[in-house]
Amino acid sequence: MSAAPHFKKLALIGFGLIGGSIARGARLEGLAETIVTTARSAKTRARVAELGIVDAVVETNAEAVRDADLVILCIPVGACGPVAQEIATDLKAGAIISDVGSVKGAVVKDMAPHLPAGVHFVPAHPVAGTEHSGPDSGFAELFINRWCILTPPEGTDPAAVERLRGFWSALGARVETMTPDHHDLVLAITSHLPHLIAYTIVGTADELAQVTESEVIKFSAGGFRDFTRIAASDPTMWRDVFLANKEAVLEMLGTFNEDLAKLTRAIRRGDGEALFEHFTRTRAIRRGIVEIGQDSAAPDFGRPHPQLGKQG
Amino acid sequence: MSAAPHFKKLALIGFGLIGGSIARGARLEGLAETIVTTARSAKTRARVAELGIVDAVVETNAEAVRDADLVILCIPVGACGPVAQEIATDLKAGAIISDVGSVKGAVVKDMAPHLPAGVHFVPAHPVAGTEHSGPDSGFAELFINRWCILTPPEGTDPAAVERLRGFWSALGARVETMTPDHHDLVLAITSHLPHLIAYTIVGTADELAQVTESEVIKFSAGGFRDFTRIAASDPTMWRDVFLANKEAVLEMLGTFNEDLAKLTRAIRRGDGEALFEHFTRTRAIRRGIVEIGQDSAAPDFGRPHPQLGKQG
Repeated sequence: MSAAPHFKKLALIGFGLIGGSIARGARLEGLAETIVTTARSAKTRARVAELGIVDAVVETNAEAVRDADLVILCIPVGACGPVAQEIATDLKAGAIISDVGSVKGAVVKDMAPHLPAGVHFVPAHPVAGTEHSGPDSGFAELFINRWCILTPPEGTDPAAVERLRGFWSALGARVETMTPDHHDLVLAITSHLPHLIAYTIVGTADELAQVTESEVIKFSAGGFRDFTRIAASDPTMWRDVFLANKEAVLEMLGTFNEDLAKLTRAIRRGDGEALFEHFTRTRAIRRGIVEIGQDSAAPDFGRPHPQLGKQG
Repeated sequence: MSAAPHFKKLALIGFGLIGGSIARGARLEGLAETIVTTARSAKTRARVAELGIVDAVVETNAEAVRDADLVILCIPVGACGPVAQEIATDLKAGAIISDVGSVKGAVVKDMAPHLPAGVHFVPAHPVAGTEHSGPDSGFAELFINRWCILTPPEGTDPAAVERLRGFWSALGARVETMTPDHHDLVLAITSHLPHLIAYTIVGTADELAQVTESEVIKFSAGGFRDFTRIAASDPTMWRDVFLANKEAVLEMLGTFNEDLAKLTRAIRRGDGEALFEHFTRTRAIRRGIVEIGQDSAAPDFGRPHPQLGKQG
């Protein structure tokens, strides 16, 4: 792996979970001489200034990107187009402009037309996160061993791609390159559909007449609580994801619905063999994920268990 | 809380995740003078003997339950009826017989007719588990702060219920009593439907033509990996759960499908407001679960993150 690249000025547009984690990691690893950020609300800007992680918190995006050689939009995908338009004339020639959006086709379509010739547009998606959001939620280790997918448009300067790859590697990420369309299909199944399903089932539980909400919460350790973590993710970010990756999500949803209908039929007919066969097959996938280090081998995600007292 | 009850002989039928965790916890807390277990396969019996947690591993269920004052069936719900029939004549008068099944209506219906007068049948369901199974997977702390639901049939001796409540309390559980039917509705939404959904989506991911299995595994940190943990649960246990709680599961599934159709329509129509409203509502449920201690407040279930190196 090449040495970590050095940027004179890193500008972050947005300081939520992802922006805040990039800032903390870049600071820790010395990836930029100066880190400047902005945030939409005065309250967030005040909090970021208080945290003291970055060199400056500025009020306008235009001011933030001025003289920056790396600009990263860390905002919901629906906001990327307008912000690209807003900052276009203030971008330094030769700067790398990137983002962290969970959808790439729509972001490229929304941002590219506004960007001036002479800047390097390298869209990126770090596949990492937690259910928390806001300026306090980030941490430097978020990207370690997680993948960051770059989707540079054809003809992008390979040196710019290489510099951004080095940046993400230095944050601990493993970097992969693919087309925006393929990215959007892959993420539709590995991230967007799981979120949609989790949001649905948590909503369903919330609406039931025969089972109270307090019962749902009390007995959630039977499986439900795992879904509530995902369904607690940032609403604005996820609204934008579903609107921006509509086609791929609807396609995966179609396949999911067929499969759910098949399992439902097996339950209705009492077809234990079909259920057993399916459940055995899915067990193997988990092993694959644990083997390549994308999840913990510890039972129950390694959730902490207090000790039994000896005073019984 | 009353002092932990003391049993002369505890018999466990089955030594998987739950049976093995009960044995370890009961041993640690001194809840029984003698703990005897059996297991269906010779291989498991050999392993249990090797582990040295229990006093004896016997070959037949009849032998295990003889003279026991507490018998707990720790086997898939589909096996409870036949085992009840098998051990009925060997149960000691006055013994408490219980189980740990995730479905209660079917277990009561299957077991009760075989049990002799003079034994106390107190069905139970500890709402706790991990994705691991087998004799090595159990641990004494599994039940701490988890709920154990008792569903004693009408007319059960209150003293027997109290003794079993004390046993589970001593293992760290919080104990609740309800009817089998209500239990099966509550668990259909908090456990069975989440498992069915997870099994479905992991199967869907496994079948896709446009996205490879290795991509699904690589990029699983976007949400998918959470579902694979649940979909790695024991196939025999879960086959039996769905067959035994068919009606309640199909009912919850109906509601889930309606809700999924609503969200799908919002995506198709680009109704961002409906999506945002739904995602905001579901976020609140998570807070409730964390507040009553049914899940960790740590981001990402407290999954471990390695540190960034300083050698950058």
